[in-house]
Amino acid sequence: MITEELKNCRFLKAARGEAVDATPVWIMRQAGRYLPEYMEVRNKVTFIELCKTPELAAQVTLDAQRILGVDAAILFADLLPLLEPMGMDLEYQKGEGPVIHNPIREASEVDRLKRLDSMESLHFVFDTVKLVRRDLPADIPLLGFAGCPFTLASYAIEGGGSRNYLNTKRIMYRDPGAWHALMETLTSTLIRYLTAQIEAGCQAVQIFDSWAGCLSPSDYREFVLPHTTAVLDGLPSEIPTINFLTGNPALLPLLAEAGGQIIGLDWRVDMADARAMLGPDRAVQGNLDPVSLLADVDTLKKRAHDVLKAAGPTGHIFNLGHGVFPEVPPDNVKALVEIVHEGL
Amino acid sequence: MITEELKNCRFLKAARGEAVDATPVWIMRQAGRYLPEYMEVRNKVTFIELCKTPELAAQVTLDAQRILGVDAAILFADLLPLLEPMGMDLEYQKGEGPVIHNPIREASEVDRLKRLDSMESLHFVFDTVKLVRRDLPADIPLLGFAGCPFTLASYAIEGGGSRNYLNTKRIMYRDPGAWHALMETLTSTLIRYLTAQIEAGCQAVQIFDSWAGCLSPSDYREFVLPHTTAVLDGLPSEIPTINFLTGNPALLPLLAEAGGQIIGLDWRVDMADARAMLGPDRAVQGNLDPVSLLADVDTLKKRAHDVLKAAGPTGHIFNLGHGVFPEVPPDNVKALVEIVHEGL
Repeated sequence: MITEELKNCRFLKAARGEAVDATPVWIMRQAGRYLPEYMEVRNKVTFIELCKTPELAAQVTLDAQRILGVDAAILFADLLPLLEPMGMDLEYQKGEGPVIHNPIREASEVDRLKRLDSMESLHFVFDTVKLVRRDLPADIPLLGFAGCPFTLASYAIEGGGSRNYLNTKRIMYRDPGAWHALMETLTSTLIRYLTAQIEAGCQAVQIFDSWAGCLSPSDYREFVLPHTTAVLDGLPSEIPTINFLTGNPALLPLLAEAGGQIIGLDWRVDMADARAMLGPDRAVQGNLDPVSLLADVDTLKKRAHDVLKAAGPTGHIFNLGHGVFPEVPPDNVKALVEIVHEGL
Repeated sequence: MITEELKNCRFLKAARGEAVDATPVWIMRQAGRYLPEYMEVRNKVTFIELCKTPELAAQVTLDAQRILGVDAAILFADLLPLLEPMGMDLEYQKGEGPVIHNPIREASEVDRLKRLDSMESLHFVFDTVKLVRRDLPADIPLLGFAGCPFTLASYAIEGGGSRNYLNTKRIMYRDPGAWHALMETLTSTLIRYLTAQIEAGCQAVQIFDSWAGCLSPSDYREFVLPHTTAVLDGLPSEIPTINFLTGNPALLPLLAEAGGQIIGLDWRVDMADARAMLGPDRAVQGNLDPVSLLADVDTLKKRAHDVLKAAGPTGHIFNLGHGVFPEVPPDNVKALVEIVHEGL
């Protein structure tokens, strides 16, 4: 539900390309390990317990928005719990990150990933959305999110982080039919999952293709683009969507073709070049190199100004080009938000 | 020294943009763990012993060229031993890859990396070149190589592989003076190192910026490009140079500006787009996704043909977009070489 107040917030105005009093800003992983307030909560529970406890997930979501003064809150959640009820045996190992103990390694096994018709098993996500929306300032939108079909498929196949995606591409190249079946399972599930987030109270959603940068443009076009488009086309049309991909600027024209009211840019591409390529009517989000937050504040300011100048005053939501690192001083993140709001 | 026979080999003709009877091909890491003949040698010595024993390094270099029937041999060596006599305490740990035990973590420490005026401590590299050149077919060029200043600086700072280059960028952003001093130390050393390879018998050299894909175009321009240019400008002008960078297609125009007779492309960019951008007079090398070698041979053939079609018949040296993986069946690599030589 989008109230008048929300409809006229900076974030949604920028998404529509309208004039804003200041460029809106939020930070990917803004509720994260760099924040002492987050660590205080996190030290009491495991990461996955935090994701699955709506009161705590809502608290860290709200804390980050309030502490930083950013123009959007983003649901605290993870990309992978969606795969659990689909049949993947997911574990977050201490210091190791997520591991899937029963990865899909052969084309013949892709039906081990089950389409999720009921969202009941993921109620903690929607409960978190409701709690956040209840307590969030009335003019601050709440963003939902999910992984893109490719990124989730890679996780299900590789079983964890991967350097070269050998197993993923092997299935893709050797059995395109099995690949597309797997992607369709994810696509239809993602549409339900994101729609449920929106129904629970999100005003926009971002989809993350965190791993698709390993693909060539022709592979992205053949094996990924139709599915990302299907996800975006399956969502309520009045809800702005941010289509974000990291790791390969050569995919930008195809990312834009895939859809999304707002294109999320990583830092590898020049903001002015990206805007010229996407055209003035496409809103963009990004794209400061996240390591800029480890520089001194003068350098940070100069670098943030470079992004603002290159993006222009409208159709731009300021963000990092990737998530904030745990090593970053919280004061630098606060300074960045002020720098963006101050403008040029 | 370039004989008439070498001057008219496929590789050097393609480098000059001249007509060839077949597109020349070689494979990054062609002497590597996927080859049983390599593993036989490698099982007797450690990786670094192999690098430092000219007879063995020459043997695996020659083996790979002969077994695959490729149009160039490439010196078997590693990017990092250059850093040892410069002051870095380098160790290749079993299963862990290279580690530098005394990484440069502060701007104030950059003078711990010493410019190398004498190449004496790296004689094993030049001895390998001489042995290979002695036994290589007279019409097959031998390629030398080195890491680019940025990639070597990152190794010296991070101390090993890195995901986000936090330490590297922190020095770069916080103390540009110290950064440029470090890069200049590497640049002048690299000119001597590559010149010595050429004097020992290489007919061309490739410089690898394996890690520079983590940079935005403006950071590449400010912090990297002048140094890569200085390396290329410092080499004998009659020797073709391949300027290769992986991980960020948005840097391609700057890579071309930095120099190099041949631009090495990874698989993230469309070959036809890259050629259109670089212009018909710039030779290119690449750019098949290396995972294609895990596909069935029909798919491999289709994918190789796509690259050949997009590249056109001249000014193209076929290669993968990155090194061959240990998991690849050697027969597929041999099949790929035949496919390229057969042509469209």
